[in-house]
Amino acid sequence: MASKGNIAVLGSGLIGRSFAMLYASAGYMVKIYDISEDMLKDAMSYIEQRFTALQANGLLKGKLTAEEQLKLITVATDMRDCVESAFYVHECVPERLDLKKKVFGELDKLVKSDTILASSTSCIPASQFSEGLNLKNRCIVVHPIYPPYYAPLIELIPAPWTDADVSTRVKDLMEEVGSKPIVFKKEILGFGINRIQYAIIKVCWDLVEDDVLEPEDVEKILKNGLGMRYAFTGQFETMHMNGFGVTDNVDRYGPSIWAVLNDMKPVTELKSDSDTAKKIHDAMCRTFSTVDGLPEKRKWRDDRLMALAKLKKEMGDD
Amino acid sequence: MASKGNIAVLGSGLIGRSFAMLYASAGYMVKIYDISEDMLKDAMSYIEQRFTALQANGLLKGKLTAEEQLKLITVATDMRDCVESAFYVHECVPERLDLKKKVFGELDKLVKSDTILASSTSCIPASQFSEGLNLKNRCIVVHPIYPPYYAPLIELIPAPWTDADVSTRVKDLMEEVGSKPIVFKKEILGFGINRIQYAIIKVCWDLVEDDVLEPEDVEKILKNGLGMRYAFTGQFETMHMNGFGVTDNVDRYGPSIWAVLNDMKPVTELKSDSDTAKKIHDAMCRTFSTVDGLPEKRKWRDDRLMALAKLKKEMGDD
Repeated sequence: MASKGNIAVLGSGLIGRSFAMLYASAGYMVKIYDISEDMLKDAMSYIEQRFTALQANGLLKGKLTAEEQLKLITVATDMRDCVESAFYVHECVPERLDLKKKVFGELDKLVKSDTILASSTSCIPASQFSEGLNLKNRCIVVHPIYPPYYAPLIELIPAPWTDADVSTRVKDLMEEVGSKPIVFKKEILGFGINRIQYAIIKVCWDLVEDDVLEPEDVEKILKNGLGMRYAFTGQFETMHMNGFGVTDNVDRYGPSIWAVLNDMKPVTELKSDSDTAKKIHDAMCRTFSTVDGLPEKRKWRDDRLMALAKLKKEMGDD
Repeated sequence: MASKGNIAVLGSGLIGRSFAMLYASAGYMVKIYDISEDMLKDAMSYIEQRFTALQANGLLKGKLTAEEQLKLITVATDMRDCVESAFYVHECVPERLDLKKKVFGELDKLVKSDTILASSTSCIPASQFSEGLNLKNRCIVVHPIYPPYYAPLIELIPAPWTDADVSTRVKDLMEEVGSKPIVFKKEILGFGINRIQYAIIKVCWDLVEDDVLEPEDVEKILKNGLGMRYAFTGQFETMHMNGFGVTDNVDRYGPSIWAVLNDMKPVTELKSDSDTAKKIHDAMCRTFSTVDGLPEKRKWRDDRLMALAKLKKEMGDD
């Protein structure tokens, strides 16, 4: 079995593991780096379990068997060993600017000048961690939605100085592994996922703070309502269908949208020790899961996303 | 087969039809009112088809067969005939304040003083159409998400003067038909669904207007990413899981959320003749559906929501 090229994944947490699995599914040789043997052992054991479960559920990506894909993944505790032959390095370390800068500073010295250097950061634009590097033109943000194996969206956000071929090559790679990449034309704070998510958080938070709804009732608006639609159609598609196209929809509902948006309260800082935070936290512990029960609940969530991914595939959706 | 009581549905459009079906599923006698025999004939033919399809898919609600449920639904072109024996009247006429006022003004003269008077309006608070009525204390907004047979969320928004037993009785009724009612503690513009939806529209619109993403790429953020999660978990549940509970999540991400929300542009009016509206409209026509193709696309969407409702039921979700 000839490999299509070497990919390095830095960091063996949940995101690193997920990307390693995606890349192996398309036949790439993947080497995962982390600082301890134990963490890497954990990661490999997790990956083996997931590959087996995915194959059993008919959801394993790519044309290779679970066993073949597993063989493509190896580990390293030496960063040079991990990255030296890679055409693409994907950093998945914890979300701290100083750490990202340290890692990219090291990569700058270790890799060839045409290597692609990706970061899975959810909030740090590439310009912030790549500025000053010799290879700043090879850096790009590759931000998934968790869990990336089932929810295929990937945000690709180049820095202003990123070479065009970097975006193109990563986009092709993501499509090759069955993901849905979107390429940003400029950097923007929060990218797309978190701009939408944070706008929703604000509305939900205010509904509790203003004593309009109980927290557990706010949840139902998405999971028993809007969210079921958004699993299949975006917001513009929804507007398009809910009327005779987008322009007709804006004609009809534009004034209502304007009135409601103007009725929103100014942005205030979310505080974890506020009464609202405590009320929401307590409600979630009571109606959804205790903090101790969250690992089990994440598995519950992943099972549902896996089933939805299967359903969408069966129905011929993208 | 003894009926559990009579319900009147005013208006035979898509929302009226859907509620008639829901009420019949729990064994209520339902009479649908509209101004023309032809419209009512159309509605009954649609309902018969849907009941048959739902039964075939194992998704018919309630314990009665499709045939038994269909027999519970009758029609009337005389409003008095429709409402006189009903304990609950559900208005589903077009979304215009003058029309709502006219209908509720008539109801005020026709029904007994303990009748419940519901409106399925998506944007007019009950206080606006019920003020001045003798029975203003019996009025409530019962706002569904479309299509209510598959997406179970129902918003119940009483006016400040609505009797407490009205909210309680409607909540019980909605739970009886398998819906997920949430009761608002006070009236608020846009209620919950549209406050969230309009906040999302603003973010998506700005991403296009500021030339950050192409419209068809904005869509993927929801349908290939966030929306898949929201089909199963609300925003607070998502925060709870993405960390060690809500308060921990706010501790970690509060400053990022604050920074991103502060980076949002001020609210501007959406204009249907703007370059942004045209760009979005054209993109949706190209990548999703022409305006002529939308009826077929709505059927496509309903099929998916039906399948998701079935999946959630099979997985034991609420």
